Amino acid sequence: MGRRMTDPPVSWLMSLALARPQVISLAAGFTDNVTLPVELSRQVLHELFSETTSARAALQYGTTPGDLGLRTLTAKRIQVLDNNRGDAALYDPARTVMTHGSQQLLYLLTECLCDEGDILLVEDPTYFVFLGIAQSRNLRCRAVKMEKDGVNLGQLKKILEELKLSGELPRVKMLYLITYHQNPSGITTSFEKKTGALEILRSYEHDAGHPIYLLEDSAYRELGFKEQQPESGLVASGGERVLYAGTYSKPFATGARIGFGLLPEPLMTSVLHAKTNHDFGTANFLQAMMYRVLKSGLYVEHVKKLRQRYEFKANVMLEAMKQHFPKGVEWIEPAGGLYYWVSVPHSMSTGMKSKLFKAALDADVIYVPGDLCYADDPTRRKPNYEMRLSFGGASEENIREGIRRLGEVLRAQLA
Amino acid sequence: MGRRMTDPPVSWLMSLALARPQVISLAAGFTDNVTLPVELSRQVLHELFSETTSARAALQYGTTPGDLGLRTLTAKRIQVLDNNRGDAALYDPARTVMTHGSQQLLYLLTECLCDEGDILLVEDPTYFVFLGIAQSRNLRCRAVKMEKDGVNLGQLKKILEELKLSGELPRVKMLYLITYHQNPSGITTSFEKKTGALEILRSYEHDAGHPIYLLEDSAYRELGFKEQQPESGLVASGGERVLYAGTYSKPFATGARIGFGLLPEPLMTSVLHAKTNHDFGTANFLQAMMYRVLKSGLYVEHVKKLRQRYEFKANVMLEAMKQHFPKGVEWIEPAGGLYYWVSVPHSMSTGMKSKLFKAALDADVIYVPGDLCYADDPTRRKPNYEMRLSFGGASEENIREGIRRLGEVLRAQLA
Repeated sequence: MGRRMTDPPVSWLMSLALARPQVISLAAGFTDNVTLPVELSRQVLHELFSETTSARAALQYGTTPGDLGLRTLTAKRIQVLDNNRGDAALYDPARTVMTHGSQQLLYLLTECLCDEGDILLVEDPTYFVFLGIAQSRNLRCRAVKMEKDGVNLGQLKKILEELKLSGELPRVKMLYLITYHQNPSGITTSFEKKTGALEILRSYEHDAGHPIYLLEDSAYRELGFKEQQPESGLVASGGERVLYAGTYSKPFATGARIGFGLLPEPLMTSVLHAKTNHDFGTANFLQAMMYRVLKSGLYVEHVKKLRQRYEFKANVMLEAMKQHFPKGVEWIEPAGGLYYWVSVPHSMSTGMKSKLFKAALDADVIYVPGDLCYADDPTRRKPNYEMRLSFGGASEENIREGIRRLGEVLRAQLA
Repeated sequence: MGRRMTDPPVSWLMSLALARPQVISLAAGFTDNVTLPVELSRQVLHELFSETTSARAALQYGTTPGDLGLRTLTAKRIQVLDNNRGDAALYDPARTVMTHGSQQLLYLLTECLCDEGDILLVEDPTYFVFLGIAQSRNLRCRAVKMEKDGVNLGQLKKILEELKLSGELPRVKMLYLITYHQNPSGITTSFEKKTGALEILRSYEHDAGHPIYLLEDSAYRELGFKEQQPESGLVASGGERVLYAGTYSKPFATGARIGFGLLPEPLMTSVLHAKTNHDFGTANFLQAMMYRVLKSGLYVEHVKKLRQRYEFKANVMLEAMKQHFPKGVEWIEPAGGLYYWVSVPHSMSTGMKSKLFKAALDADVIYVPGDLCYADDPTRRKPNYEMRLSFGGASEENIREGIRRLGEVLRAQLA
């Protein structure tokens, strides 16, 4: 059992924050506390409990795919976010499954698609807890460089070509993209890049001997600072090879852990079988609550408030970085999400064992070291000069103070 | 991906019930609708939302092991159920993890302990969704016969001895027992049998080359008809090799999906790592609710009401079986839980493709065919003349009518 049990960095960072409450965490992906939907939840729960029938239904087992009403409204919402660009049949509750956060869907899909030793295609950098899934299931990764508008399609093709030549193409089952305000880089992938990647994958299916899926993780989609949706989701392009993962965790309540997927067959059936083994189905109580939130129409208003709040907090962090970070420290300005992706001069390193990380910890501020976000891909060296800074959970004051401390540490290390 | 995707029977039974609402399901393990804790939930939610601080905390991410208050009360409750028989240090929140139902814990433990091809020791018969986990992870099973007070220890020893001789002992990682009002047989395992099994497992550890754990699944522990706890849990015997799985799903609300485990190291650490990959942690909102339910002291009263209700429903089913079932049909009388385990004359078969099952379906009544509850163990023939009948979800009227219909079908088949 040993090999699957490497301590995930996220656990370490969390226990660190718990053990030293004076630490300002710019590491955690927590959401903003002030905008959590207290009133809205109270209201829908009051409704839910005003009738014994609805209260009992919420407290009883549901079905494995999830509440039909919630699945219907969820599919409909994605259709609206996609500007009704895709075929209406793709946004169907029968193609929709509710999960305990979108994290669970990522796990289930990986379980259903991949066998030990298979190869995952991921962004470089990518979501580090997804790398934890890969590691725990003994999967290998090949990483595709990120550009301003998503993965480098030329490199994607090159990697697939190499794998074809080496006879390993049959081990490739999917490409994993975080398409909106990516964790950690903040980059949003253009619709053209998504369809371009899909086309490339399809062109290798014959040689692979099976479908190659594109898993679109849209976790931060609703957290764009501006109301205007930057890009349509990939479902709109036709659903056959598209696995779409979404969530209400971040835009509504991380404590309610409701994610979802829009999936084609036979993946939907596979995921439902796996979910039966994992937990039978997502807690019906949470789904009943979420259904009413969507039905009330107040969800959209809530998300609007969130957007403004995160735009504000992103600006607080931006101003503080401009003020406190020394020359040579650079960052990407995201149009949404929770993170700045910051790079320091390459003479320094940001890893957990680096002088910088230790000095930051001594100054009571932590970040996610950039190297955690890079897959173990033997074909390239892992960059180790970046950090992910989150403005999600920290208060305005802590963002300012955290960046000030980090700036001081950076200056001292550079001197 | 195909091999892991066998349709789990539970899905088929559920979709059957949904597709034909006139069917009386004595198959589903649903809990009693009438006694679902509507008032109690309303009350604690009102409390939870009366302060912004507590409401926000419930709507925000928690930690991977779960809410400290809930873990503390949970460990304490098991200590009380064990009549303070074990060392107090064993009932510690640090040994306690909250999961999305105890089903998730069963999955996580199997994931952490077992590699493909490993051998699980299970009861014969056993919980059929656990067999689904085994199948999905390509594990083999060896089944140990059930007696009135739990597994046959002689046979357990014999199986281990055989595996030792064949060199397969290193593939054995755990024995899985459902110790209270077992699903499906209703049998409760005596404390002596549990410690006896534990001792046998320990005596093979040297030859196995690693620990062999005993996973005690206590899902139905609180559903004994009488208040008197029949047997202490195995934690009381010392925790080093004991994996204890419990749940609030069945005694409180199946729609809230809260289970838990009391685990020794290094399993606790392994499970937390795996849970990080699965979903980070159990929905904080559900935990906040459950914490207040326990803290109110009203949980115990609720469980008392449940016990009486299930005793009543069990009697309704018993009387109906006595009245309607033909001679030669026999059953075990459980002292708790949700099920009767019924055997028909061995000339008949009860399987999904049997005449009996089809005739029952035509008469609009379904049960869980007994053979589903038997592991694929090549060393014995699978019994196929039993059925699991649940009095959990069905109303009083439906229990009576369902048994009447089934009795009619049985008579016709026997004639």
